[in-house]
Amino acid sequence: MSRNSRENPPGPSIPAANPLRVILVSPRNPLNIGAAARAMSNFGVSELRLVNPYEVAFREAKSAVKAQYVLERAREYSTLADAVADCGLVVGTTAIGHRVLEHPLRRLEYGGRLIAKKLATAPVALLFGSEKFGLSNEDMSHCHWLMRIPTREEHGSMNLGQAVAVCLYEIRRKPEEAKAKPDPKRPAAAEEVERISIRLEEVLERSGYVHDRIEGSTRMKIRRLIRRMELNTHDAEVWLGMLRQILWKLDKKPE
Amino acid sequence: MSRNSRENPPGPSIPAANPLRVILVSPRNPLNIGAAARAMSNFGVSELRLVNPYEVAFREAKSAVKAQYVLERAREYSTLADAVADCGLVVGTTAIGHRVLEHPLRRLEYGGRLIAKKLATAPVALLFGSEKFGLSNEDMSHCHWLMRIPTREEHGSMNLGQAVAVCLYEIRRKPEEAKAKPDPKRPAAAEEVERISIRLEEVLERSGYVHDRIEGSTRMKIRRLIRRMELNTHDAEVWLGMLRQILWKLDKKPE
Repeated sequence: MSRNSRENPPGPSIPAANPLRVILVSPRNPLNIGAAARAMSNFGVSELRLVNPYEVAFREAKSAVKAQYVLERAREYSTLADAVADCGLVVGTTAIGHRVLEHPLRRLEYGGRLIAKKLATAPVALLFGSEKFGLSNEDMSHCHWLMRIPTREEHGSMNLGQAVAVCLYEIRRKPEEAKAKPDPKRPAAAEEVERISIRLEEVLERSGYVHDRIEGSTRMKIRRLIRRMELNTHDAEVWLGMLRQILWKLDKKPE
Repeated sequence: MSRNSRENPPGPSIPAANPLRVILVSPRNPLNIGAAARAMSNFGVSELRLVNPYEVAFREAKSAVKAQYVLERAREYSTLADAVADCGLVVGTTAIGHRVLEHPLRRLEYGGRLIAKKLATAPVALLFGSEKFGLSNEDMSHCHWLMRIPTREEHGSMNLGQAVAVCLYEIRRKPEEAKAKPDPKRPAAAEEVERISIRLEEVLERSGYVHDRIEGSTRMKIRRLIRRMELNTHDAEVWLGMLRQILWKLDKKPE
C-alpha cells in the first residue's frame, strides 16, 4: 500500500477494470477501509482512492486475503478535486434525508441505476465521507448529485463498510434477475402424481386412517393434497418408494 | 442482553415490529454481531436470534447507540429448530454458487422479492452461517431454499455484517423507486434561456473572444451550448445576473 503506487501486477483473481472509483474522504478506522476493500472485491470493483485518510488508518488497514490487492492498488490524494479529476460523474453519499440540501438527492434504487448506466461511457466517482461527520458542504460541492441509502429516518447513519457494500450491490445487481424464474427442477408428470395419490389411498385404508374404502370426496381431497405439494420428478420417485415400502410393511403385519 | 429476555420496553426509536428474523448461526466475532444489529436498525428490522454463538462473542457485542436495543432484545437458542420454530419460511444464505446444492438456490434480487412478499403473511427467518464455515448441511436442511448474494465467483464470501446489510437492503428496497423521477426543480423557460444566449453573445463580443459581431452559425452554436446546460429557473437567474455584471464591467473598462 503506497502513495500513488499502481505498479503491482494484477494477480489472477483481479477482475477486469471497472470504471467505478470508490472514494473515501478522511476515513478514520482501518477496519472500515479494509471492509470497503473487501466489498469492492466481492462486487468486482478495484479502484479505491483515499482523500486525506488518517495516516494510521491507511497504514493499518487490512482486508480479506482475496481483497488485499484492492488495498495494495489504493491511491492516496490530498484534495478531493484531484481524486475525482478523471471522472465524468461525481456522486456523494449522505445519510441526510430531511435537511434541505443544495443538491439533487436521489434514493439508491434510482441513483444506482443512473450510475450503472453512466459507467458504460465514463468513470464514475462514488464518495463516502468520514465515519463521524460524513461529507462536508465543501466535499459535496464537487458532486453532480447526492445519493441516500433508504434507511430508517430515525437511524439513517450506516457503518462505512456496510454502506459501501450496499451501494456496490445496488450498482452491480441485475434488475432482470428480480423476475421470477421457473424452478430448474422438472415438475412431476400428472401420471406420477396420480400414482402417489393411489398409493397414499391404499396406505390410509390399510393403516386404518379411514375405516372404509376411500371414495368420492375423500379421494378428491387426497388428490388435491398431493397436487399442492408441487412435486418434482425426483421427489415424486422418493415419495412413491416410501409409500410402497409402508404398504409392504402394512400388508406383512398380522391383522 | 440476556438469554430469552424480551422484557425491555421498546424505546421511542424502535420501529414497528417487522416479522423478519435475522438468525446468526454460531457467530464468532462480536464486531460482526454488532454490525448485524446496526444494519437491522438501519433497515427497520429488530428481531435478532443467535444459535450457539461463541459465548464471548455475544457477551462482548456492542453496536451503534441507536441499534443497541436490537442487541438487548436478541435471543439465544441452542438449536436452529427452536430458533426458526415460529417462521413460515426459512431461507439460508450461502456464498456457494457452483457446487451442486440439494436446495433450490436463488439470487438475492429474486429471493429478496419472495421474502418481502412472504413477510406480508408470515414471519420469515433469514439465516447466516458462521464467519468461517457458513451454514452446515444440517443447518441447510431446515431451509425451504437458499439465497446467494451476487458476488464475484472468484471472491464470493462476504463479511458477515456486510452480508446482513446487503440482504436487508434488498428486502426493504422499493422497486418502484428505481424508475426515473422528473427532477423536482422547474426547468427554465425558453425565453429565459434565450436571454442568457443573447447576454453571452454580448459578453463574447465585448471581451474580444470573437473578433466581429456574432452571426449565423456562431449564434446557433452558442444557442445549443446554452440549451445543453438544461438549466432550471433558479440557475438561469444566477447565470443572467453573472453575465449582466460581467457586461457592466466590460463596458466600464477603457477600450
